[in-house]
Amino acid sequence: MPLAVVLVSTRNPLNIGAAARAMANFGFADLRVVNPYDVAFREARSAVGAAPLLAAARSFPSVAEAVADCTLVVGTTSVGHRELQHPLRRLEYGARLIRRALPSSGVALLFGSEKFGLSNEDLAHCHWLLRVATATPDLSMNLGQAVAVCLYELVRDPRTARATPARLKPAAAGDLEQITRLLLDVLQRSGYVNPRTAASTVGKVRRLVRRLAITDRDSSVVLGMLRQILWKIRGSSE
Amino acid sequence: MPLAVVLVSTRNPLNIGAAARAMANFGFADLRVVNPYDVAFREARSAVGAAPLLAAARSFPSVAEAVADCTLVVGTTSVGHRELQHPLRRLEYGARLIRRALPSSGVALLFGSEKFGLSNEDLAHCHWLLRVATATPDLSMNLGQAVAVCLYELVRDPRTARATPARLKPAAAGDLEQITRLLLDVLQRSGYVNPRTAASTVGKVRRLVRRLAITDRDSSVVLGMLRQILWKIRGSSE
Repeated sequence: MPLAVVLVSTRNPLNIGAAARAMANFGFADLRVVNPYDVAFREARSAVGAAPLLAAARSFPSVAEAVADCTLVVGTTSVGHRELQHPLRRLEYGARLIRRALPSSGVALLFGSEKFGLSNEDLAHCHWLLRVATATPDLSMNLGQAVAVCLYELVRDPRTARATPARLKPAAAGDLEQITRLLLDVLQRSGYVNPRTAASTVGKVRRLVRRLAITDRDSSVVLGMLRQILWKIRGSSE
Repeated sequence: MPLAVVLVSTRNPLNIGAAARAMANFGFADLRVVNPYDVAFREARSAVGAAPLLAAARSFPSVAEAVADCTLVVGTTSVGHRELQHPLRRLEYGARLIRRALPSSGVALLFGSEKFGLSNEDLAHCHWLLRVATATPDLSMNLGQAVAVCLYELVRDPRTARATPARLKPAAAGDLEQITRLLLDVLQRSGYVNPRTAASTVGKVRRLVRRLAITDRDSSVVLGMLRQILWKIRGSSE
């Protein structure tokens, strides 16, 4: 996808590496850094496992140059106290707008420095702003985690949230009944069944076995266990 | 929400801290660690800004003890190559099941060590498994980022993805027409308008101004700019 992740004035090389890893995880490739602390960028590039994506990352002296080829520029913010001059959209909705723009045009997603976020000057390059709704307005998100959450929302598949998952094949009624009878036999021989309430115990055990959600694969395991227990009980009582 | 995040055999204190931060961001409070490297846990506890959530974190010697009070135990996995003995659900769907269980019962969400994930022994305590769908099956997610993405999906508000955001109030037609006339005056005096095509230029400029999505607040700024430019042009041509 032609989405560029733009890290502005990032200080910590671990965060550049974490952003790159999240991009690789979710299938994005275009990493750009603006005015990073040179040491941070070099260290991140040389980190283990970061190889291809970070090696291809480009460094720019300004936000203007980093986003020059993009038709939509979106800044991220942790709300904060300053008065914003931009439309502010929650990630759930903003990601939809970005997805809609993406097939036809380049989109830049900007993340500010760990300590200060994006400056007002950086924000002036943005068409609108994105925020992840958090429970703690005064505790900003970790940079690498913010990148991961934003990219996850972009590739998230809402159909999957509705789909019913493949279920494990449940055991057939005949197997459940066989389990029931063996279990009743074991309980009987173990002295669990009170002769006066034996009739109702049968029903209770039968319903219990049906509630257990025994799978087809597990039913033969359970039968094997019960047979073995029964064999032991028979042996000891004879 | 009565969701416990359970970190099993975590090695890196930064990752314990990152998990705690994501929990604070998304409004979860119950952090449990199983068999952590003692140094890692102590270092994470003493990290700046981690205070209340980490101080309240509890340490357990085994998964069984860590999840004993939970009625639903969900493991996380990065698919991996090993054959899984559990139902495996994508995060988008699995989070729905967890949300459904949560109001009435405790749910434990398990994350394994950075290097090996959850062991088969750990997994045996789980009712089912959750995975974040990634583009790169062989590149696992960073632990702190995986925690952040899972918790984000749990608190994500799908209604927000459908809602239309509050728009900035657009400029009234009267203001747009005033801008159009001033701009035409400026263009005329600047020699931009070709007398032979003047009639069609008027229509072009009028439509252009309507396409610009000028807000109510910006219209007076644009009018001010145009008036100033007109004043300058008039002065220089007289």
